[in-house]
Amino acid sequence: MARARLKIIPLGGLGEIGKNMMAMEYGDDIIVIDAGLMFPEEEMLGIDLVIPDISYLVERRPKIRGIVITHGHEDHIGALPYILPQLNVSVYATKLTQGLIEVKLKERKALSRTKLKVITPGSQFTLGKFRLEMFPVCHSVPDAVGLIIYTPVGTVVHSGDFKLDYTPVNGKPADLSRLAQLGGQGVLLLLSDSTYVELPGYTPSEKVVGETIDRIMANASGRVIVTTFASLISRVQQVIDAAAKHQRRVFIVGRSMNDTSKIALKLGYLRASEGIIGRLDELRNLPHDKIVLITTGSQGEPTSALVRIANREHRQLHIVSGDTVVISASPIPGNESLVSRTINSLFKQGAQVYYDKVSQVHVHGHGSQEELKLMLNLIKPKFFIPIHGEYRHLCLHARLAQSLGIPKENAFILEDGDILELSPQSGKIVGRVASGNVYVDGLSVGDVGGVILRNRRMLSRDGIVVAIIAINQQSGKLVGRPDIVSRGFVDTIESKDMLDESRDLVAKVVNHGGKRVAEWDVINTKVRDALNSFYYERTKRRPMIVPVMIKV
Amino acid sequence: MARARLKIIPLGGLGEIGKNMMAMEYGDDIIVIDAGLMFPEEEMLGIDLVIPDISYLVERRPKIRGIVITHGHEDHIGALPYILPQLNVSVYATKLTQGLIEVKLKERKALSRTKLKVITPGSQFTLGKFRLEMFPVCHSVPDAVGLIIYTPVGTVVHSGDFKLDYTPVNGKPADLSRLAQLGGQGVLLLLSDSTYVELPGYTPSEKVVGETIDRIMANASGRVIVTTFASLISRVQQVIDAAAKHQRRVFIVGRSMNDTSKIALKLGYLRASEGIIGRLDELRNLPHDKIVLITTGSQGEPTSALVRIANREHRQLHIVSGDTVVISASPIPGNESLVSRTINSLFKQGAQVYYDKVSQVHVHGHGSQEELKLMLNLIKPKFFIPIHGEYRHLCLHARLAQSLGIPKENAFILEDGDILELSPQSGKIVGRVASGNVYVDGLSVGDVGGVILRNRRMLSRDGIVVAIIAINQQSGKLVGRPDIVSRGFVDTIESKDMLDESRDLVAKVVNHGGKRVAEWDVINTKVRDALNSFYYERTKRRPMIVPVMIKV
Repeated sequence: MARARLKIIPLGGLGEIGKNMMAMEYGDDIIVIDAGLMFPEEEMLGIDLVIPDISYLVERRPKIRGIVITHGHEDHIGALPYILPQLNVSVYATKLTQGLIEVKLKERKALSRTKLKVITPGSQFTLGKFRLEMFPVCHSVPDAVGLIIYTPVGTVVHSGDFKLDYTPVNGKPADLSRLAQLGGQGVLLLLSDSTYVELPGYTPSEKVVGETIDRIMANASGRVIVTTFASLISRVQQVIDAAAKHQRRVFIVGRSMNDTSKIALKLGYLRASEGIIGRLDELRNLPHDKIVLITTGSQGEPTSALVRIANREHRQLHIVSGDTVVISASPIPGNESLVSRTINSLFKQGAQVYYDKVSQVHVHGHGSQEELKLMLNLIKPKFFIPIHGEYRHLCLHARLAQSLGIPKENAFILEDGDILELSPQSGKIVGRVASGNVYVDGLSVGDVGGVILRNRRMLSRDGIVVAIIAINQQSGKLVGRPDIVSRGFVDTIESKDMLDESRDLVAKVVNHGGKRVAEWDVINTKVRDALNSFYYERTKRRPMIVPVMIKV
Repeated sequence: MARARLKIIPLGGLGEIGKNMMAMEYGDDIIVIDAGLMFPEEEMLGIDLVIPDISYLVERRPKIRGIVITHGHEDHIGALPYILPQLNVSVYATKLTQGLIEVKLKERKALSRTKLKVITPGSQFTLGKFRLEMFPVCHSVPDAVGLIIYTPVGTVVHSGDFKLDYTPVNGKPADLSRLAQLGGQGVLLLLSDSTYVELPGYTPSEKVVGETIDRIMANASGRVIVTTFASLISRVQQVIDAAAKHQRRVFIVGRSMNDTSKIALKLGYLRASEGIIGRLDELRNLPHDKIVLITTGSQGEPTSALVRIANREHRQLHIVSGDTVVISASPIPGNESLVSRTINSLFKQGAQVYYDKVSQVHVHGHGSQEELKLMLNLIKPKFFIPIHGEYRHLCLHARLAQSLGIPKENAFILEDGDILELSPQSGKIVGRVASGNVYVDGLSVGDVGGVILRNRRMLSRDGIVVAIIAINQQSGKLVGRPDIVSRGFVDTIESKDMLDESRDLVAKVVNHGGKRVAEWDVINTKVRDALNSFYYERTKRRPMIVPVMIKV
């Protein structure tokens, strides 16, 4: 197989944030790294979530040796329930990551069919021609790993999502010696996390957050309500530790926070001494300065516990004077307004609120510039691919690599769907595969396409007008007066006269001289044009106009 | 009039960003400060813009002595074209601010009816029982002022939007001595800008941006494209100055950038030596390293020049290798995703892009904590009202004032509509007036209310299904098979069978045993419920369902 080369095919997560997925192919063997989802952007109206297009993988199903997962965040595991039924291959991940995957699969009732293999970092396993080893990294969920992939073409290092925290809350710091050793042996390719390449310096350690939370709890006269990501188990640990120190009990509120904490406690990633964690019904008997609540809602999600509390919509919990709220997270891009609104509501309810802009109650989980440089410096790869980030992040990371001596032609800015072919000497983009967004909306995966979204967008702006035109089957003539039904366009009472006038306009257009009505295509266009101009002139709005002919 | 007290009535801009407006009332005299608009939030579907509810002012029109404007930003002047026709009073502002107001009024053809009075900072003018003086402040538009308002109850200082820039690009630094002098004489009330109360320290001077732009221009090998707010005339000046220094010519692209620059040049707020500013048709003959373009689009507005350039949709301008783009602005909350996308597209086109996260190409126009403290310290007011900001900003600013010795009961966190009554000794909230959002959508002001927006929201999520049921007038029986028309719900070809099945379901519900059809209200509800359950079960989506009865 002289022609066999290593192919790197990103299927998600390059050029935009989220739904991370990548295929690596050598001869007849394919491994898939991560299978994430993305939450819909503003203009993806009504869409529940977005997963990668896996048609390339479906066509090559017999070649796929397994899916390897770097950590248990939605943007790395969230597509599994939707793609495993089609691919039916084993999933390789660390213990906690598997626990979190199980939760996801159970939700979609996709668990029974799936083979999950737990991998211990440091041990090696083989998938076709690929030999793999996971190495621990620090990130905002425990048990996160990077990957060392020994291929016939050379060694590949995949950073996963990482930062270099020398004093992490749980787990060990990244094994820099192992990375340096690999670098010494020669690494063909490094794929490294680009998410925070815009930030100079180092990302602070989780430890500083622990200190802030401790200080807040020491000074709070009433209840302390902490919200964070459910998967940020180390943060939950910090809250439990601080609570224990200040003789407070901890109450966990919200489904996903409860689910994740249970798994983490069961698997030993969260430690709480006997009696610290209480049941909600025990709340009422405790003085407020003995209470800590941990809730979901750090992103201002409208149905989350914190947002319902902030809006006085929660059945059991209301903000009272003396309450302290800690938003121990920063807004994911796109969620800024929701988070901002939640903070405002909490202030309005009288809470003291600590959030990232005014207090160091959060540090993020990705490495900043100096960490990215250190990674490049230790690994000393021949080739470099920046991964995980929007297009500008990839460009800036590639430029950073060049500033450390990686030749420009050896740093590849890929986009989803690109096929990069690597030999030990050189690499080039040799083609493209299908890639992009597959929308999940309700039960269906992939049926919502451009037309439906365009219609929803149009409907959302100026509403809809349906013009109903009844035609006599025999005579082919208009029956009665056309009807107009509108929604989301104008106030139908205030604008009754205008709507009435438009009924007559439709009649006039259709009923040209009381003769047999023309072809439907002709009438359809004429009615649409006439109403469009009429309404625009009167309102400067452009509702969607749908003429309907009824034969009676 | 022993009972006469000073009333402060915020009508916009307290508790949320934008549409700033405030009424000040003493006896039979009312003055209005600012009349801004707000751009619609994500859930205000199809709305063009939002203005304050002025019903309180309309009811008291004979008492209104004038509208005083602090500076020419949309969130302080944008409502004028909509409210002046109703209030018909004079507008008082500095020269450039009046120029910017004229542009706005011309756009809405509301200019001729309006009396605009130009005020020179430092001079005094009288409106009823109020004597006023404007004092210059630094902000991100020239000719911005704060207000000193001498009232029978005491002196009021209104900061406007301000920062303390000791080296501004045009205009003078704020007159701190005048403020200190006022403070010495005794100030009853300070109203002060809260927008950036979350930021510790001082806001950097405009000067640092000039240095960055100069450096970028010196090093750029090709064209330099700078985008900023059209009203940030000092920034435009900095670009022109740097261009002149580096022997480049300047081309202004985009309607609002052109309009504002013209006014500013005419009124002397922008200076450009002969021949620096060129016409777009001269572009083609110039080498790229002699070109600077100034464009709109700093907020990623889809129709702006920069965004059309980034998406290769601009007729005359395309990004070529060697181009440098400077985004000399930061995203206004809510615009983060649009800006982010624009930057990504520019990188993809091959441009070198400088933006706020990676380079100091922008400083904002509001004072940070230390500046807010200095203002409080110089003015030494008896009472304090934080203005301009979301609810959390007001709370944090009030807390800041308390930390400087203002008693808690003398710092008032007001919300729009509150009536604060002040005597020389004390203040209290004595009532509320109508306030809130008035939506402008197309030609109409105020007709889009909750129902229309709720409908648009519902339509945007899962689309609409219209069920058309024809009934014979005489027999009262169903005629033919009911019709189903859907938009934005499902793919009508792929889901043809389901939609067909639902037609039969409607027939079954309506045509109970072939008898005379029941009351429309009954049928309407039954059809809606049946389709709702049917579609939800099949798709887990909930389109808006509109049954329509046609009598034939």
